[in-house]
This record gives sequence, C-alpha cells and structure tokens, in this order.
Amino acid sequence: MIIDCHGHYTTEPKDLHRFRKDQTAAANAKDKAAMPPRSGLKMSDAEIKESIEGNQLKLQRERGTDLTIFSPRASGMGHHVGDESVSREWTEICNDLIHRVVTLYPKNFIGVCQLPQSPGVPPKNAAAELERCVKMGFVGCNLNPDASGGYFNQPPMTDKWWYPFYEKMVELDVPAMIHVSGCCNPAQHTTGSYYLNADTMVFMQIILSDLFKDFPTLRFIIPHGGGAVPFHWGRFRGIALNNGKPELAEIMGKNIFFDTCVYHQPGIDLLTKVVPIDNILFASEMVGAVKGNDPKTGFGFDDTKRYIENAPLTAADKAKIFEGNAFKVYPLLKNQIAKQAA
Amino acid sequence: MIIDCHGHYTTEPKDLHRFRKDQTAAANAKDKAAMPPRSGLKMSDAEIKESIEGNQLKLQRERGTDLTIFSPRASGMGHHVGDESVSREWTEICNDLIHRVVTLYPKNFIGVCQLPQSPGVPPKNAAAELERCVKMGFVGCNLNPDASGGYFNQPPMTDKWWYPFYEKMVELDVPAMIHVSGCCNPAQHTTGSYYLNADTMVFMQIILSDLFKDFPTLRFIIPHGGGAVPFHWGRFRGIALNNGKPELAEIMGKNIFFDTCVYHQPGIDLLTKVVPIDNILFASEMVGAVKGNDPKTGFGFDDTKRYIENAPLTAADKAKIFEGNAFKVYPLLKNQIAKQAA
Repeated sequence: MIIDCHGHYTTEPKDLHRFRKDQTAAANAKDKAAMPPRSGLKMSDAEIKESIEGNQLKLQRERGTDLTIFSPRASGMGHHVGDESVSREWTEICNDLIHRVVTLYPKNFIGVCQLPQSPGVPPKNAAAELERCVKMGFVGCNLNPDASGGYFNQPPMTDKWWYPFYEKMVELDVPAMIHVSGCCNPAQHTTGSYYLNADTMVFMQIILSDLFKDFPTLRFIIPHGGGAVPFHWGRFRGIALNNGKPELAEIMGKNIFFDTCVYHQPGIDLLTKVVPIDNILFASEMVGAVKGNDPKTGFGFDDTKRYIENAPLTAADKAKIFEGNAFKVYPLLKNQIAKQAA
Repeated sequence: MIIDCHGHYTTEPKDLHRFRKDQTAAANAKDKAAMPPRSGLKMSDAEIKESIEGNQLKLQRERGTDLTIFSPRASGMGHHVGDESVSREWTEICNDLIHRVVTLYPKNFIGVCQLPQSPGVPPKNAAAELERCVKMGFVGCNLNPDASGGYFNQPPMTDKWWYPFYEKMVELDVPAMIHVSGCCNPAQHTTGSYYLNADTMVFMQIILSDLFKDFPTLRFIIPHGGGAVPFHWGRFRGIALNNGKPELAEIMGKNIFFDTCVYHQPGIDLLTKVVPIDNILFASEMVGAVKGNDPKTGFGFDDTKRYIENAPLTAADKAKIFEGNAFKVYPLLKNQIAKQAA
C-alpha cells in the first residue's frame, strides 16, 4: 500500500470560494450582519465527485498510489482573516467538507483537519475542533506556527503557550503536520518561500528545546522535505552539538518526521541519504504547490513516487517510506482504514 | 588562488562590544546624552592583530585558502537597534575597523562593507556609505533584506524602493551579498533558520520579477548555498516555469550567485550538481555560524574547501568556484589585489 500523507483539497466546489470571499469581506468590514450563512452553501455530492475524480483520484490511479491523508487547502486556512469566530466557522466548514470527501471515497482518502487558530488566540482553543474531527475519523491535524500569515510573530512552538493543545494531541494520539497558510506578507511567496521558511524555523525551534522531554509521544510532520534542513544538515547538526544536544537523528527519534514533497531527483536523493529512513513519510502535496510536468523529465513535478522509486534505497527502506512509517506516525490509521473499508 | 568570498570579523576587540552595548542602551532609552563617543573607542593594532592571527589568518593558513573577502560580523549589524543615526554611527565604525584589518593584512583580506540601514528608511540613504567604502578599497557590500531583525516586513527587494541604491551599486560596479543580521524575533534562530529563510525569501522575490531587465549588471550573492533553493530546485523551477519565466539557470545568469557555506559533503554535492558552476562562489563563513569539528569527519564543519575538493567536479570547475567566478562577480577585485600587494 502506498500512503500519501500530504494531500490538500485544492479543487473545492466553487460555492465554497463564494462563501469565503463573502466571509472575508464581512470580516474586513467588521460587519457581522454581512456574514454569509453557512446554510447558504451549495456544494452537491456530484460537484464534489467531479472535482475529486478529475484530479486527486485521477492522479492516484495514474501514479499508482493508494491512499491520501487529506486535509483542507493549506493556503486557504487563512488564520489571519477576521477573528477567532470567523476562523472557527470557516474551519468547521472546511473540515466537514473533507469528511464528505472521505465518506464518498472511503478507500482513497482519510481525513486530517485544519484548526480554528487566530492571531494571539491560545492554541488550546483549537482542542475541541481537533476532538470533533477525530470523532469523525480524522487521524491528525495541520497546526499553523504563524497565524499572522507571514510575519512569524507567534511564540515558538516550544513555548508553553502551545502545551494545552499538545496535551490534547497526546491524549487523542494524533500527530500534527506543521503547516502555515497563505501569505499576506508581500516579502514572502506562499508556496515558494513562506512554506519552506516555516518548516525550517520550527525545526530549529525544536532542536534546542526540551519539548519531547515534556511530551515523549508528541509527533510532528515537517512537510516539504523539512524545508532547508536536509540541505543544511551539517549546519543544524553543528548548532545542535555545539549547544550540548545529541545528533539530529536522535533528536528526531520518534517525534519529528519529514515528508517527501521535494520535486526533483537530487533533492530526494539528498533527503534519503542524510535523514534517517524511519523519519521520512511519502507525500506529494498534490494537487498543490507545483502543477504541470517537468519539461526535462516529462513527468509531473509533484510525482514524487518516481523519485523515491529511483532513489538508491533497498526495497525495505522504500516500504518504510511508502507505508510502514505512516502507521507509526498515525496510530489511528490502521483501524480507520479497516473501518472505512467495511 | 583560493578566494573565500564570505568571511566576517567575528573576533573583534572587546572595546567594540563595550561601545555597542552602551550605544544600544542609550538608543533603547532614547537618551542622546548617554551615547558613547566614538573617540572613546580603544582598539589597538596589537589587539586587532592578535584577534586575526589566532583565528581567521590561522584558519586561512591551516586550510590553504589565500584571500578572504571580509566584512563586519553579520549578526552584529543590528539594523533594528535605534534609528538611522545610530545605525550610521555603528556602521562607519565597523567598516573603518574592517579597513584597519585590510591595511594590516593587505594580502589576506579585502573589504566588504555593512550599510547604515534602518527600519523604514529608504535604502538610497545607504548609498553614500557604500561610496565612501569603495573609495577605501572595498569591493562589495552586505545588503540586509529585513532591517526589522526577524519579521520580514520590508518591501521585497524587487520593489522600486530599493532602486536608487541599486543605481549606486551599478555605478560603482560592486555586488551585494544579501545578508540579514541578528534576529530579535524569538521564533527564528539567527544562524539556524533566519539567515537561511532570508536567502530563500529573496531568491523567490527575484525569480518572478523583472529586476534584471531594469538592472542588467546588478549582481547579488545569496549566501549559505542559496538557503533552501538547491534542495528545492524542482519546486522553484516549476514555480518559475508555471509563471512564464525561463529556467532558473537562465534567470540566475550573470546576476545571482550562491556561495558554498553548506557544512556537509552531501549538501555541497547537491549544490554543485543542480546550480550552474558559473553561479557558485567559494566561501566558508568562518569564523562564523558553526564552530568546531564534525565528530564524524574530524574536520571543521565550516572547512568547506574540503567538500569542494571532494565533490565530483573537474579541475576547471573547481577553479571557477575557488577563483574564477569571484573575479566576474567582484570586478574591482583584480585591481584591488594588485594595489594591496604593492
């Protein structure tokens, strides 16, 4: 079984975009009366099916992957828009929509939720939505380290500000993918620099901390191959060692995992060479950051399965990346697959 | 000749630190009367010699490099401290100190200046200091894309806000290394994530712009191996191509260069495999971000010469990285070497 741990619903029904546009306008105008009603959303099963079958499901079949751990569009989370109540309304709608996709295609998708984060609002306020989604069969969440949308002005993820939320994650036994949303800072480009910078930032926050002493079973997936970390493995190793910390491989242990959203062969070769195989999860981020085919290979930039297959790895290592590691990182996955198959 | 294009004076005489501490305290207290006088600075030639001979010069000799393009401590620029006048005073002192080092060791060091940037202050205000330093024999500058010290809230470097400064760079025929300073944002770690994030951010700003149509001879060195870019070469290529831009190699052309401050062999192998050799400059960043020896190799993390020597490259390609490319990026270098040898 090939499990893609990082897919977003980026082909949503168009009325979802209408709703969000109206909601954003009302939030910006601070006009509660102009807020669009949730009951006004028109998204038929037929529309959802068409959007999935022509995109994510088509690519699953063409590329030969089996299951996508599926969450709302990351750039659409928009935690910086409006206040906490706006974020909560939008988050519930997006998560319910993922649940509908999973219900329509129970063998192909399993849910991961977005969270009702908002600038300055304690992460513990997102615990209830995580719990609601896990009850619906979700196996993890996307946790945003920068609700500001581009200015990196939240407390580091090692700060006790985050701890009540981590307690809920540990209680439910679900991991978080560290994932920022769309960037409203003109200096950073959402998918080009902002995503990668957040990944690198959070890894660096963690390695000098005692976070996993406080939460030995807390698990983070740092997407996009861990940002800049594998390329600068020596820099991060050196900084860790110079600060009295152990080797990065030991720090990552059973707590930090990188995905394979790295869109060229030399990048995947480096990732799988320097990062412990036990800490790598297969992912494509499709349909996502980089669409279209690489003119030099003729294959999709985000067809990361090909890069893993072509990497100089044993069959056992490839099996860990494609499947085995995912069951360890997402303990709820096995039962949820069985439940959805029934 | 082996030219290290990225060295900082990180072993400054201790009275410089005393001065800066007093200056920062006065700036934070907005107390002009408490500003330390420049004339009070006590930094003898003997002290400078000791600091250089036991560190940068010692490492040059041990590692077999010949010339370091040398600038003030990057993390010490601190453009977010105080206002423009504080930044200007501090900058002049730091640049004058580099000039003293170069004068004491004319065969080993050539100067690059820091600039009197300040949050919200137009970069054109830094043109006069660049001109002053070039008259002293400096061959380039360090240009900070984020004077805030960690919040990335300046206009992108493709914004016309920067253009008057670029005009001065073009007129003087000097390149800029894109380099942020010490981070005052607790979410980012200065050398671990902030430096790399700034590198990645600026590369991404540039590749979707027409900056080099407006300034065909403008040259930027993006340090630390180009941040996350080589590892995510496919992502950046795909984004550029999807936006109607050419291949990254063509975009970089004679305008963007990455240095070799990447502290492990697999990273250098990736860098030299995906980035055009003509766009790579040898550098170590020593004595800098990561001190000490890698326990796995027994050699300094920042002994990047070894990684280049061990990379699967032709002698001609290594010569470009070690020497040839530097003369193209720093047109003033050749004459300045001759002048300082005399």
